Amino acid sequence: MNKVFIVGIGPGGYEQMTIRAVRVLETCDVIIGYTVYIDLIKEYFPDKEFKSTPMKKEIERCRMAFEEASQGRRIAMICSGDAGIYGMAGLMYEIGEHFPAVQLEVITGVTAATAGAAVLGAPLMHDFCFISLSDLLTPWEKIGNRLLRAAQADFVICLYNPSSRKRYDYLEKACDLVMQYKKEDTVCGIAINIGREKEEIKIMSLKELRNTQVDMFSTVFIGNSQTKNLNGKMVTPRGYQNV
Amino acid sequence: MNKVFIVGIGPGGYEQMTIRAVRVLETCDVIIGYTVYIDLIKEYFPDKEFKSTPMKKEIERCRMAFEEASQGRRIAMICSGDAGIYGMAGLMYEIGEHFPAVQLEVITGVTAATAGAAVLGAPLMHDFCFISLSDLLTPWEKIGNRLLRAAQADFVICLYNPSSRKRYDYLEKACDLVMQYKKEDTVCGIAINIGREKEEIKIMSLKELRNTQVDMFSTVFIGNSQTKNLNGKMVTPRGYQNV
Repeated sequence: MNKVFIVGIGPGGYEQMTIRAVRVLETCDVIIGYTVYIDLIKEYFPDKEFKSTPMKKEIERCRMAFEEASQGRRIAMICSGDAGIYGMAGLMYEIGEHFPAVQLEVITGVTAATAGAAVLGAPLMHDFCFISLSDLLTPWEKIGNRLLRAAQADFVICLYNPSSRKRYDYLEKACDLVMQYKKEDTVCGIAINIGREKEEIKIMSLKELRNTQVDMFSTVFIGNSQTKNLNGKMVTPRGYQNV
Repeated sequence: MNKVFIVGIGPGGYEQMTIRAVRVLETCDVIIGYTVYIDLIKEYFPDKEFKSTPMKKEIERCRMAFEEASQGRRIAMICSGDAGIYGMAGLMYEIGEHFPAVQLEVITGVTAATAGAAVLGAPLMHDFCFISLSDLLTPWEKIGNRLLRAAQADFVICLYNPSSRKRYDYLEKACDLVMQYKKEDTVCGIAINIGREKEEIKIMSLKELRNTQVDMFSTVFIGNSQTKNLNGKMVTPRGYQNV
């Protein structure tokens, strides 16, 4: 059967890939992905054919994978992080409805949030939410309501896509909503360029986060009521009792 | 400096470890962990010393890691999945307060939820929450409130620790709360023994989930209002517009 693997390559370099991801890519004829991700892994798979489409041409990229697979070639579609978290897996299954002869398999990877959490300390040790601040495909009202409810229920909140040129004030807007329920001195963290060159972390209060500019290579973490700054690390205790 | 690595070994076998995790374990003198996790990887690191403590003796296990490291040995503390998601990373940082001469580094891994999502299809393509149903260290009122708010804001919900012998009816209680805001026919999924022998998935409605018995090796996914069953796969679209 014709097959496409949807492979999460992790947040950065080769070392953060799983062994299974490497082994699957080694068996494929063609590796398809956004140029930036292909550049991250290309040197480790020198005998493969690589194909790409520009940014925002995700639907075309998915179709390309199915069309190549339909010709009997073994295909890998790569995504950064995990393919199933704000990645390409969902779109591939949706477009796959039109290609019933092609089988899909998702190869899981390390997502930005867990890799970012690892460099920040241990912020995600208790219940948490992932919220994307991108309103390209989701109305802002829905995003805002999620921020409010997550803050109200004392979740740790991890923000994906916290900013872009057009959405330069979205993190500020998000913090204002969250501060309706979380204290101004809630411990927050930013992980920048996770697993890549110039990796950097910052720990600050929610009030400071509100007035901080972040870029699209940043993942933002807002603590719960128990989250602490332990010698420059962001740590959420695993429970609400003393250890 | 004396060092302890806190290493996530992924949900199951050797292939789901990252290359970095393998390389770090290869450099360590002693690998410490819960017996079940040691048994998963032991054969791949034949020349290492392995140490363990029984289940529920996590604090003793952490102290053991610091004490060994204080004697100048290079130590890895292993966890299943990612060490930073309901794992040992937080406790290690807390106990580390008493061992200032020992440096900690978290090596991220694939968490059960992303690996489970990969076998179910693509349930986590939009904003989601992780909620543990274990009330050992968290009052049930807090857990219940999180379930309600997460349902109200139309998050995809991923449940860790959905059941145990003592908490046999917690999934039922959780579904009853969630159904205050989510429809009975919301698409749900269960991933069992992820990445291990007898891996299995089930797709069902929220109403059916309420009446299903799960065990401690299961991870439960409750969809958002857009989640679909596409030919037996659980798929959440990436946005609220047509693709």
